[in-house]
Amino acid sequence: MAQQGLLILFLLALLCKVMCTRSHHQSTKDPFTSSNIDGRFCLSWRLAVETNNELPWRTVPNQCSQYVEDYLIHGQYERDLELIMEQALNYVNGIPLVGDGMDAWILDVDDTCISNIYYYKSKNYGCDPYDPPAFRAWAVKGWCTAIPSVLRLFNKLIDNGFKVILLTGRDKETLYQATIDNLHNQGYIGYDQLIMRTTTYKGQSAVMYKSNIRKQLEDEGYRIWGNVGDQWSDLQGNSSGNRAFKLPNPMYFVP
Amino acid sequence: MAQQGLLILFLLALLCKVMCTRSHHQSTKDPFTSSNIDGRFCLSWRLAVETNNELPWRTVPNQCSQYVEDYLIHGQYERDLELIMEQALNYVNGIPLVGDGMDAWILDVDDTCISNIYYYKSKNYGCDPYDPPAFRAWAVKGWCTAIPSVLRLFNKLIDNGFKVILLTGRDKETLYQATIDNLHNQGYIGYDQLIMRTTTYKGQSAVMYKSNIRKQLEDEGYRIWGNVGDQWSDLQGNSSGNRAFKLPNPMYFVP
Repeated sequence: MAQQGLLILFLLALLCKVMCTRSHHQSTKDPFTSSNIDGRFCLSWRLAVETNNELPWRTVPNQCSQYVEDYLIHGQYERDLELIMEQALNYVNGIPLVGDGMDAWILDVDDTCISNIYYYKSKNYGCDPYDPPAFRAWAVKGWCTAIPSVLRLFNKLIDNGFKVILLTGRDKETLYQATIDNLHNQGYIGYDQLIMRTTTYKGQSAVMYKSNIRKQLEDEGYRIWGNVGDQWSDLQGNSSGNRAFKLPNPMYFVP
Repeated sequence: MAQQGLLILFLLALLCKVMCTRSHHQSTKDPFTSSNIDGRFCLSWRLAVETNNELPWRTVPNQCSQYVEDYLIHGQYERDLELIMEQALNYVNGIPLVGDGMDAWILDVDDTCISNIYYYKSKNYGCDPYDPPAFRAWAVKGWCTAIPSVLRLFNKLIDNGFKVILLTGRDKETLYQATIDNLHNQGYIGYDQLIMRTTTYKGQSAVMYKSNIRKQLEDEGYRIWGNVGDQWSDLQGNSSGNRAFKLPNPMYFVP
């Protein structure tokens, strides 16, 4: 009798644990099941922003804060990056390099070479509005961490003899040394040039500024084989390169 | 005693059912949990193809057949479409129409206005290679069904006074009447023109063919306010419209 009672208690406890775990999974990490309306919406929202359908957008919808955190922290973001960088590596291996020192590749910096996830954690993963002074204070610290799959592409490009050009919207006047130091301490060594925004380009949209710079590079004789960025504004416009790779970024939008 | 035995049996059965349901959910519909490697890969693959990073691709990876079916059949595809068409409707409401009969909007046909999911089901949701004769045989039947969220946009555009131009890579010689009938029987009534591929454009890439047609339309005086397609080749190239909307399509890629 006592044994049967204990068995019943044990089974009840097990059932409770299984059901609780299941409900936790559904509420935080399963965007497909019917019990998670936010997850399904946020998966649609992420597709819409990554395909540039939802533009311009200023902040992440509040109901997607947890979803974006899960996406960034629990592995899917890294997997998405890995697959795209695998495509880039396959493409690199097939490029018929001229070898005259003018075979170029362009990489954006923020959330392409190095990550600002730690900063955006303090901004509710993009649910809080853009805060230029706070971002500058963060960038000056030089604490951004390398995005491993992009660093692998960077090293492959250097090894293969590409001129790697880092092109960023960061302000040259205030962030020059911090950006150089941060790139260096994260392993970005051997690039051809780091091009930052000067007063000449102040107030221009990213598309306009980056197009102008790429046009100048082409005029200097560079062949832009590839272009990698987390924003469509890194990749659109003129002289955008033979092939573009759009990395995911569900935290913010740069027009 | 007998009652306790029955209770134990009942609890065991309940536990089994809960665990079986949970494992089914994880294996087919949850792309985030660690027990579903294929689902996580296929979610990355879908992002890569929708952002045009993986190009050109010929078939859906075999391990994603079930994933693509789940995506298309269990609601996420419709939700993705709804959100993008909501963006388009918001945009439409803000357009300052000139009202001279030259305010135009371009829609692609296959998997934009009308759906080929039923056909692709027989092709393992895109895991089987492209089969032009079989697709033609399907298209001739005129059995494609309207995509509801796109039909809503279409009707809104007609109501607001846009000239809606349907621009498709379908062959005019063999599919003209079937396409007209299919569009009509699915509610696409009142469009300005249906432009199909003639021998003049045979062999041209979709980007080239569609760019040429859009350029002609602009030369005729049309203002292309919007452009909707399920392929990047519907939206890239010249005269691509003031704003483009990329609909999801994880089944096939048109270069």
